[in-house]
Amino acid sequence: MPAPLALPVLRSDNKPQSRPVARPDTPKEKCAVFGAWHIKPQLSSPARQAYLGLYAMQHRGQESTGIAVSDSKRLDGITGMGLVAEVFDSATLTDLDKMGTKAAIGHNRYSTAGGSVACNAQPILMKYSGGQVALAHNGNLINNDLLRAKFEEAGHIFQTTSDTECIIHMLAQPASQKSPDPLAHTLRYLQGAFSLVFLFPDRIEAARDPWGWRPLVIGELATGGYVVCSETVALDVLGAKFLREVEPGEIVTINDHGLATRRFADEAPRLAQCVFEHVYFAHPASNVFGQNVQIARESMGEVLAKEAPPPKGADYVVPMPDSGRSAALGFARVSGIAYREAIVPNRYVGRTFIKPTAAERQSAVRLKLNIINELVRGKSLVIVDDSIVRGTTTKAKMDQLRAAGAKEIHLRISCPPIMHPCYFGVDFAQRSELIAHGRSVEDIRTYLGVDSLSYLSLPGLLSTMQRPGTNYCTACFSGEYRLDPEHPTSQEVVEPKQMKMLV
Amino acid sequence: MPAPLALPVLRSDNKPQSRPVARPDTPKEKCAVFGAWHIKPQLSSPARQAYLGLYAMQHRGQESTGIAVSDSKRLDGITGMGLVAEVFDSATLTDLDKMGTKAAIGHNRYSTAGGSVACNAQPILMKYSGGQVALAHNGNLINNDLLRAKFEEAGHIFQTTSDTECIIHMLAQPASQKSPDPLAHTLRYLQGAFSLVFLFPDRIEAARDPWGWRPLVIGELATGGYVVCSETVALDVLGAKFLREVEPGEIVTINDHGLATRRFADEAPRLAQCVFEHVYFAHPASNVFGQNVQIARESMGEVLAKEAPPPKGADYVVPMPDSGRSAALGFARVSGIAYREAIVPNRYVGRTFIKPTAAERQSAVRLKLNIINELVRGKSLVIVDDSIVRGTTTKAKMDQLRAAGAKEIHLRISCPPIMHPCYFGVDFAQRSELIAHGRSVEDIRTYLGVDSLSYLSLPGLLSTMQRPGTNYCTACFSGEYRLDPEHPTSQEVVEPKQMKMLV
Amino acid sequence: MPAPLALPVLRSDNKPQSRPVARPDTPKEKCAVFGAWHIKPQLSSPARQAYLGLYAMQHRGQESTGIAVSDSKRLDGITGMGLVAEVFDSATLTDLDKMGTKAAIGHNRYSTAGGSVACNAQPILMKYSGGQVALAHNGNLINNDLLRAKFEEAGHIFQTTSDTECIIHMLAQPASQKSPDPLAHTLRYLQGAFSLVFLFPDRIEAARDPWGWRPLVIGELATGGYVVCSETVALDVLGAKFLREVEPGEIVTINDHGLATRRFADEAPRLAQCVFEHVYFAHPASNVFGQNVQIARESMGEVLAKEAPPPKGADYVVPMPDSGRSAALGFARVSGIAYREAIVPNRYVGRTFIKPTAAERQSAVRLKLNIINELVRGKSLVIVDDSIVRGTTTKAKMDQLRAAGAKEIHLRISCPPIMHPCYFGVDFAQRSELIAHGRSVEDIRTYLGVDSLSYLSLPGLLSTMQRPGTNYCTACFSGEYRLDPEHPTSQEVVEPKQMKMLV
Amino acid sequence: MPAPLALPVLRSDNKPQSRPVARPDTPKEKCAVFGAWHIKPQLSSPARQAYLGLYAMQHRGQESTGIAVSDSKRLDGITGMGLVAEVFDSATLTDLDKMGTKAAIGHNRYSTAGGSVACNAQPILMKYSGGQVALAHNGNLINNDLLRAKFEEAGHIFQTTSDTECIIHMLAQPASQKSPDPLAHTLRYLQGAFSLVFLFPDRIEAARDPWGWRPLVIGELATGGYVVCSETVALDVLGAKFLREVEPGEIVTINDHGLATRRFADEAPRLAQCVFEHVYFAHPASNVFGQNVQIARESMGEVLAKEAPPPKGADYVVPMPDSGRSAALGFARVSGIAYREAIVPNRYVGRTFIKPTAAERQSAVRLKLNIINELVRGKSLVIVDDSIVRGTTTKAKMDQLRAAGAKEIHLRISCPPIMHPCYFGVDFAQRSELIAHGRSVEDIRTYLGVDSLSYLSLPGLLSTMQRPGTNYCTACFSGEYRLDPEHPTSQEVVEPKQMKMLV
Repeated sequence: MPAPLALPVLRSDNKPQSRPVARPDTPKEKCAVFGAWHIKPQLSSPARQAYLGLYAMQHRGQESTGIAVSDSKRLDGITGMGLVAEVFDSATLTDLDKMGTKAAIGHNRYSTAGGSVACNAQPILMKYSGGQVALAHNGNLINNDLLRAKFEEAGHIFQTTSDTECIIHMLAQPASQKSPDPLAHTLRYLQGAFSLVFLFPDRIEAARDPWGWRPLVIGELATGGYVVCSETVALDVLGAKFLREVEPGEIVTINDHGLATRRFADEAPRLAQCVFEHVYFAHPASNVFGQNVQIARESMGEVLAKEAPPPKGADYVVPMPDSGRSAALGFARVSGIAYREAIVPNRYVGRTFIKPTAAERQSAVRLKLNIINELVRGKSLVIVDDSIVRGTTTKAKMDQLRAAGAKEIHLRISCPPIMHPCYFGVDFAQRSELIAHGRSVEDIRTYLGVDSLSYLSLPGLLSTMQRPGTNYCTACFSGEYRLDPEHPTSQEVVEPKQMKMLV
Repeated sequence: MPAPLALPVLRSDNKPQSRPVARPDTPKEKCAVFGAWHIKPQLSSPARQAYLGLYAMQHRGQESTGIAVSDSKRLDGITGMGLVAEVFDSATLTDLDKMGTKAAIGHNRYSTAGGSVACNAQPILMKYSGGQVALAHNGNLINNDLLRAKFEEAGHIFQTTSDTECIIHMLAQPASQKSPDPLAHTLRYLQGAFSLVFLFPDRIEAARDPWGWRPLVIGELATGGYVVCSETVALDVLGAKFLREVEPGEIVTINDHGLATRRFADEAPRLAQCVFEHVYFAHPASNVFGQNVQIARESMGEVLAKEAPPPKGADYVVPMPDSGRSAALGFARVSGIAYREAIVPNRYVGRTFIKPTAAERQSAVRLKLNIINELVRGKSLVIVDDSIVRGTTTKAKMDQLRAAGAKEIHLRISCPPIMHPCYFGVDFAQRSELIAHGRSVEDIRTYLGVDSLSYLSLPGLLSTMQRPGTNYCTACFSGEYRLDPEHPTSQEVVEPKQMKMLV
Repeated sequence: MPAPLALPVLRSDNKPQSRPVARPDTPKEKCAVFGAWHIKPQLSSPARQAYLGLYAMQHRGQESTGIAVSDSKRLDGITGMGLVAEVFDSATLTDLDKMGTKAAIGHNRYSTAGGSVACNAQPILMKYSGGQVALAHNGNLINNDLLRAKFEEAGHIFQTTSDTECIIHMLAQPASQKSPDPLAHTLRYLQGAFSLVFLFPDRIEAARDPWGWRPLVIGELATGGYVVCSETVALDVLGAKFLREVEPGEIVTINDHGLATRRFADEAPRLAQCVFEHVYFAHPASNVFGQNVQIARESMGEVLAKEAPPPKGADYVVPMPDSGRSAALGFARVSGIAYREAIVPNRYVGRTFIKPTAAERQSAVRLKLNIINELVRGKSLVIVDDSIVRGTTTKAKMDQLRAAGAKEIHLRISCPPIMHPCYFGVDFAQRSELIAHGRSVEDIRTYLGVDSLSYLSLPGLLSTMQRPGTNYCTACFSGEYRLDPEHPTSQEVVEPKQMKMLV
Repeated sequence: MPAPLALPVLRSDNKPQSRPVARPDTPKEKCAVFGAWHIKPQLSSPARQAYLGLYAMQHRGQESTGIAVSDSKRLDGITGMGLVAEVFDSATLTDLDKMGTKAAIGHNRYSTAGGSVACNAQPILMKYSGGQVALAHNGNLINNDLLRAKFEEAGHIFQTTSDTECIIHMLAQPASQKSPDPLAHTLRYLQGAFSLVFLFPDRIEAARDPWGWRPLVIGELATGGYVVCSETVALDVLGAKFLREVEPGEIVTINDHGLATRRFADEAPRLAQCVFEHVYFAHPASNVFGQNVQIARESMGEVLAKEAPPPKGADYVVPMPDSGRSAALGFARVSGIAYREAIVPNRYVGRTFIKPTAAERQSAVRLKLNIINELVRGKSLVIVDDSIVRGTTTKAKMDQLRAAGAKEIHLRISCPPIMHPCYFGVDFAQRSELIAHGRSVEDIRTYLGVDSLSYLSLPGLLSTMQRPGTNYCTACFSGEYRLDPEHPTSQEVVEPKQMKMLV
């Protein structure tokens, strides 16, 4: 297998091209996808709906964003680095409105912060012998390198380092184009996690891998049109009615005749829905894999309070804002200890904070989280947070609480220790960087300098999920990968159940 | 008295100059001020401390920001429109570091959103016969028009519409310059609210009006230097030790010899500390007028729960995020009803959201606040918010909750009805725009379409304050202005107690 | 033959994507190419030499520019819209210096003004199975559509609409890669005009089509290195010594071992050197096809004065600046009439002039050319210009002279009437837009409203060229195309002499 | 006299503020002014006419530009750094069109290149007790420091370092406002060179100092309106009819009643029209001080050819482009030697050329001027240029010609040696930097390394002027200053003839 090469493309502006980040071997992404097709004209254009939908799903990716549109005959689009609000303004939306009134797809890409790396801007818009196509992808393919090498040997030229481009080359190859269903033929060669939204001039096609790693839902617009998107919160913002999830192994087509469905593969016998969507990624107001996220998080806090009750004499349950708030409320409810918001996040600290000098590093930490000294000094606190990845940030926060005079700190984490990397769309870190990899909870407690530390157990976590536990991917906690990332194949997979599933 | 004229200055760039907003007759501001003087060299430069301090006080003003620095002999500075993080980056801070290593002052200006108008960028840096001076101002002068007209008749030319510039003209005039204490002489002519930080090449002078409307505190840097700033949260971020408030009527001088103090006027017999700082403006982690803000807000919620208990059968106490959260927690504690965060704010909706078309307006509302439908549909909710100004935003939020299926909505506001404009540094709106002006609570309840509505009483509010109630300005609720904004004087006021105080 | 499709690619920024211009069927370009390889380290980096060389050849293309560099192992680069001075600054050059110290190639693209359309930014940098390659191209392929369709049918995906990309796909295909000389194999499939500079990590390869349409020269750096570029003026600026032209059909390789040469094809029996390079395109200080351009232009004016002498009583010979100046000087010398610069161009009117309203159109014309009224009013003028394409601009200038009071205008053009489009790298206009297409000189005279009009004859023009007239392409004047643009082939052409040459 | 102080004003953006340049003691400027008042509505707006007029006069200043407009009641405006085409685009002009439809004034400021320094952006727009006023100024006041100190002592605060601001403070002071004609009262206090265009909401007032240093002309628009501007080339572009010059000592008022005139002072007995306008500054197509500039320059070349004929055997007369071209043509006509344009300027080398490294310095010189080697190698050349200031640039050009193989170089300069600084609107350099200060022509010849060097004599220069030689300022050549720059007065000057005129 050829080593994955970093492709330096000529930049189209005069800013320095960032060199590929060294660490990850392949791009890992956690993104939002969106698509809207108008059967009848609507008050709001497809591009503006994509804007609103992507805005609502901004939490899934802050590095880049893009929208591609169709006027029924031709595709066009705009992508850019930064937030939805930075890339799109009234002028660009007006441009997009002119370029396409029939349909739009969109994409948010994950930021480099906190365990992820840059992937390439999407949607990707390309032209091949079959015409134009745009594609937005959430997930990660484990056989991308195999497939790509095969194409390069055949003379194909790649423009990006993204596994998403490989899907289009697969679609463009004569073998696919000659097949009765080129798209289904294409999808059967992909291994890994993919929730895809394709835009062709005359239709949207949305597809989800047979294991259902990433969410993808369908909604109906009030006045003649459909929406597909990663999370239901985008449907809510658009006033669209939730219909159902796109099923694992299904292709949903939306065009002027309405919705149609077909399968490119059977649903896998055991699904691999990402439980970390519920722990951290998804929006509290979304329904993911059939249940509300915030209520699930409160339940995690409740179970955690039962599994790891606070010590006697604890004064307050304090959430680590914002991600620990739901679990902390559940924890406080069950434990009966007063819930106090003793840590206040600075709403203005974003990606543009200057790189602090050594002298300012401590100030920078204090700027991000302000402590209510009256609620911390001399108190015994139960701090509730959602997860620990590398531990460095958590350590800094614990030190800050100590410096503010906390008498005791009891840290409670609402998921199990993260000990294994994810190959299916989340880039935590390399295995060796994960603090829980090869360390006991007691080691971690010592490192963090807290008085006690407890994690939610994996059975505890799965008990809060509404679907059977066997249908969730828990590999980051358990190491049990549904597909073997080390041994991908470049063969067509007609029946997922025929694949060698590891667990 | 000449009508206040809007002065269009030639723009120094090629962006369209925004025309003065029509509504307010004079600029009203609610800002942050900051100053740092280094007696001994510190690890972090004065400009970088100003950056951090202003960042920590960003909530007091998001429209513009600026920093002026001294190298002991000469002042220089940078101002810009936007957030601290937008105006300053590594390059600008490095510029400032080169321009002045001795001291820095800074300013955040209030945004146009939610009851305020643009004021002019600060600090203002000017040169007069006495040399250079830079000035940052939080407050509002009620005799600005009188003073300004006097100067214009004498041939003075003003560059801004800000009352801050008038203070420098007062200082520059021969009468002040010939006085033994030009600064004290100047301050005795100013009527209204002012917390001022002056930067001269060789010193910082910080002054607070005799009524103490706006906060201003002093802190000590660990290694030889002092800080003055609006809120203690900036001291915490810098690791500076809180010393005390600047007293009403006091001038504090900071130079290489340390701190010195003198009075330009006696403290007023009854202070006018702005109670709205505690209700809404100040940072939860700050200590303002001697007490912590977040704990005060929790107490307001507790008193409110006693004054206006929830109806029987209420399912949840739900905060209107983020400002209603503290009071809601206090309310839930006292009322015993479950606290649930059923409304989730979108952290990415900022000032750059596109102006929605009529068709998108409702989506825009839904984008700002996401509803957890499972916690709202069919439920009886007690919604807790901090205040209502014009009522339009509150109405939209109540409608959104109804649309999400709320069975009953009981709205509780943790301050009294705002019925009167503020002339001392807050620009709520014109009297006629305030929903509580000339309307009963029942009228407002009907307008908002809620099942019940209660406000915290003024005695109830004052009961949560640690200082005697007579020392707070409550004019926005009571109409009792400490100074008569309709009849200012341009005379020197030696003894505040000799002034005609209305209440 | 499939219709050439305009490929809308997703833009990588948030500016509106310009739709492909409707008129031309295929992209036509007139560009500058550059390459520099350092065998020994030089005082100035390859990228800075490319910057200077492209700057010196800015007249060949103002729409976009770019530089790609090699560090011997890896390629990188920057392209951008606009002039060399707009795309590159100290920071970008420093970036390039870091990215590659061994070699650089560069490209200027022709502007949309005056009979040309946007082509895509170059150098193109791509990765294929053979590694990385960057390519800069001056010319136009007439069999691009044929080749491209073949590749698209094989599943290849194209990123640009440029025929340059097709060359790289040809190189990447297995048939080329398996050939003993992949590059020569590739070039034998290309039909049309091409002066190419390839950058591979370990070498530069420069090639010129067997007909020699576009110039390409080699120079030697004083201290161990070589330069290839479109015009000698770039060599002069770098202080490089002119060695010779790259020969038609030749490939010149530059690497750390020095220069090497091989042929991919024989030189064509009759060359097709573009005579319009001497008439208009090339820099006056360059030596093109073996002779200085400015002196050639003066000779054109001299021959023109003999062929079409001025009428009796003519007061002044006046050049149309700047392009008519050389020929006007020659014309004045021979005719003995006083040379006066009565028309002064505004040096500041560039591409950023606002689109004038109808009311301002006349002012806009007068702004571009200022008339010395004293030299025009009541005078009989011989105006000398280099060429007329569509005639609209010339008409406006003649009207301006009339309005300034010119008594008689005798227009002399230093080339024959342009009656046919160019398919080999110049985009004049569509045939029907050329004023000389299907119109007599008398018709044109009437349209322009001048008292007399004469063009230089084709024999007269060729008499000023130093090489035999049969070795120049004069198709735009004569309609005699060396290769038939209507019937290209996608076959390999081993011997140009075997090709069906039309003339 | 107080030392001129550099006033650092707070910057209104976040770019580094450039520190005042050290060299010149006071700001010296050479600028363009413009004003247009519409009595009847015109097809083109006042702001767009200002744009066109400033564009036509861009050669008089490239550092900054600005336009102020009136809607009859209120003034507004935009200024910016850079060229007219950089500061104004369609959007800004549309803004200006909305801000004022009645009148516009404008200003171009001189660039820092070639003997000048930054002055402050104009027009200055200010509000004073009399209302709003905008002002554009070409010239320099020698009593600015005296006046400014007086105002600062009275408590006035200045915003700029420009002498232009002082004029507005003079106008705003009670003594002026109480006078029957505040403007005339103001102007009588100003000493030095000033061509001023004031915009009040209800009128334009244009004034010229009693000595007439800088040009200022009046034109009439075809359809009811008037224009005042520095040069007639702006009238030509607008299609306005030249009426006459504004007379020295005159104020011309333009309002809806038409033109009116009055005097604030008698015309000086001997005028001081700047002869350098004809030598270098003014546009070739302009009529300045009653005669065409280009024809005057040709005459200078003719007189120079008589005074300093070329040596025997000279091959060519070669202009130093672009400024030496007119004189070279005159020189060639009289001398009978062939005129050849052997030096070709690069039209793309502008202010954005990167700062070359030492290694690139020579390439940078060669990039600016391309040599036609065939016309230089082995030839004896007469090079004609307009002037020499410091000599460094000329030296580099002579070296370049030598390197290209010139056998003999005979340099002819079409004005006398510049030996003295100008205090009236041109900033050549400090006295000591002028190569001709304290050096003989032979010294200069040796320094430049040319075979012969001759300057035009002062009588020769004045012989080409149409007005009596005593009415021109020739101080830069002769040292005879009309007013003593070392001893200004702050007194009112009713009769210029009563002033102590030095010459």
